[in-house]
Amino acid sequence: MEHGTTVLLSIFVAFLAAQVGAEIAQRLKMPSVVGQLAAGVIVGPSVLAWAEIHEPLRVLAEIGAVLLLFSVGLETRIAELKKVGKVALLVGVLGVIVPFMAGGAWAAAAGFDSYKAMFVAAAFVATSAGITAKVLQELGVISRIESQIILGAAIIDDVLAMLLLVVVSSLQSGTGFDFLRLGTTIVQALGFILLVVVVGRYVMKRSSNLMDAPVDPQSPLIISLVICLGLALAAAYIGLAAIIGAFLAGLILAETDHRSALQKESKPILAFVVPFFFVVTGMEVDMRMLASWDVLGTVLLVTLLAVAAKLVGASIGAASLGFKGAMAVGVGMVPRGEVGIIIASLGRQANVFGNTTYAVIIAMSLLTSVIAPPALKVLFKNEDAQPA
Amino acid sequence: MEHGTTVLLSIFVAFLAAQVGAEIAQRLKMPSVVGQLAAGVIVGPSVLAWAEIHEPLRVLAEIGAVLLLFSVGLETRIAELKKVGKVALLVGVLGVIVPFMAGGAWAAAAGFDSYKAMFVAAAFVATSAGITAKVLQELGVISRIESQIILGAAIIDDVLAMLLLVVVSSLQSGTGFDFLRLGTTIVQALGFILLVVVVGRYVMKRSSNLMDAPVDPQSPLIISLVICLGLALAAAYIGLAAIIGAFLAGLILAETDHRSALQKESKPILAFVVPFFFVVTGMEVDMRMLASWDVLGTVLLVTLLAVAAKLVGASIGAASLGFKGAMAVGVGMVPRGEVGIIIASLGRQANVFGNTTYAVIIAMSLLTSVIAPPALKVLFKNEDAQPA
Repeated sequence: MEHGTTVLLSIFVAFLAAQVGAEIAQRLKMPSVVGQLAAGVIVGPSVLAWAEIHEPLRVLAEIGAVLLLFSVGLETRIAELKKVGKVALLVGVLGVIVPFMAGGAWAAAAGFDSYKAMFVAAAFVATSAGITAKVLQELGVISRIESQIILGAAIIDDVLAMLLLVVVSSLQSGTGFDFLRLGTTIVQALGFILLVVVVGRYVMKRSSNLMDAPVDPQSPLIISLVICLGLALAAAYIGLAAIIGAFLAGLILAETDHRSALQKESKPILAFVVPFFFVVTGMEVDMRMLASWDVLGTVLLVTLLAVAAKLVGASIGAASLGFKGAMAVGVGMVPRGEVGIIIASLGRQANVFGNTTYAVIIAMSLLTSVIAPPALKVLFKNEDAQPA
Repeated sequence: MEHGTTVLLSIFVAFLAAQVGAEIAQRLKMPSVVGQLAAGVIVGPSVLAWAEIHEPLRVLAEIGAVLLLFSVGLETRIAELKKVGKVALLVGVLGVIVPFMAGGAWAAAAGFDSYKAMFVAAAFVATSAGITAKVLQELGVISRIESQIILGAAIIDDVLAMLLLVVVSSLQSGTGFDFLRLGTTIVQALGFILLVVVVGRYVMKRSSNLMDAPVDPQSPLIISLVICLGLALAAAYIGLAAIIGAFLAGLILAETDHRSALQKESKPILAFVVPFFFVVTGMEVDMRMLASWDVLGTVLLVTLLAVAAKLVGASIGAASLGFKGAMAVGVGMVPRGEVGIIIASLGRQANVFGNTTYAVIIAMSLLTSVIAPPALKVLFKNEDAQPA
């Protein structure tokens, strides 16, 4: 088959698998994300091998993640986020410290040296904002206080995980602990976020009428997409996750008069690109790596540890919400998703992990992502949810 | 910069350039396609080099072309297409024969041997349905009889160009003229088109209620996207252009009750992906190849010949519409666009063309694409156009 046709085939299979998986999950009363992740594992290289993961598919998946977080930003109000700021900070920080210690302890017990143990610990720390956000969107509870805390804390986690990677990689380069680089990174990250939120919000409020261009009725959507891609790029450029920039773009555009029109118009685009994110995340799992009882045992142990550590750390941070609220926040922080997978890949590229450790961390990232959504559904239901 | 960031940068630059180009073109009362093509040339590798053309960007461009032709199919009625069938066939066939002879004559005069001359002639034959269709969409005249003839004839042209490539490549392989392969190709192409239109239309009419899935209000859109990608893939699989499959998908979905809902919901997706098609087409042009008066002279000559041959052939085929109608059809068939660029690339890969011939054919493809839209606008205006 010609190369272009192979690429088109993978895109078609991935999209179809995502829809079939979502449909099955919904009939089983599960969040559609679970079905899409599972469908990805099944059509992926290690099971049916109906679709290859090539770069264009990965980029479609990244665009999906970027637009998903953009839409989550659109549904979030800065004022609401401010209200939960202190709790979110506490959840984010404790949700990093406890898993970091748990991951490091397991890695040390498993015989990794201290540098490798830090890398393993970094994978324990990650939180996938995308997976939880999509589940909360589907449940129609994005505006609930628990959801806002989860989103705020997930972003803080992402920033902390990035700082951790800076520390780990400066240890790796053998130059010792690089305080200057760490300082620069902290200043850049915080500066970027503050700049976008403060200046961006001001500009948006002042110039929202500029988006009513005379010719094209779709220009607010198009200008918003430019802002979203631009801030995603800027975030990636300074070493943050692109999705953070996209979330911030949504956040400041939510302050304009175009908010509800943008939410409505972006839905068809989201329906087209977001499924690629989840199905490709599933496809990254190589089930063949797990074909031994030893490895499976390790996966179970590591997953249990990762779930428990995050749940404990994050829910202590959210203790002020009461037991049920704190549990909801804790569970919402559990999925490692694509962030865990990215750290595992970095670790393998740097020859820190062998194939087995890589497979174990990938499997843990995926299992945490599949376990959390049904639990979230239970924790968030029986209350006055407004469907999205 | 990290590779992932570079890819994101190119995507951002391409999208932004497309929007700026479209805005400038509209202010100059030109079709936005012209602005997007020109913006692509400017930000592309040979002028500002702000964006690289990598595979993910090309795939986004192809998805853009696929969804564009899908939307054109959605705006087309099979009954209307049938009415213009005979004229479209005449336009398509004459619009191939005359340019083929003109291209062959120029190539022979320029000293190419008969095999290379056939390849050059094939590039003269191509028609870009995408560029004309977008311009007609913008002018709101897709349902006019001239537009329907152009679309029908462009598809016939694509099939004929494909048959020509089969002939050329069987000559190239030195096995002589392969009647069996030519026959198989003809049967496959016609069989595919008939199968989709007859069976697909029947199935769509019968089962259009299956698309009203109970859970998700966006399921007709999603099922339509699956059908669109699936038929695009099937077309590519049998060697047709993927956009033909996408057009057919739109055509049969236009026969369901979901037609107007699909037209409405697909607009935001089109606004996001279609610009990539035009801007990437522009980026493929390497202006450095044209930096000599000799080459520029050749480009002008070849472009004039390509325009004249297509205009004469196609407008004779459409003579029954009267002078103005025939001219509109003729001009609509002029853009070679991405089809000419694809044939030029095939020719370079097969070592048939040197760099200069390649650049000349690319430049001709692009110039014909930039000249035609403003002319179309003039020929289609001053009549009862209904804005899209």
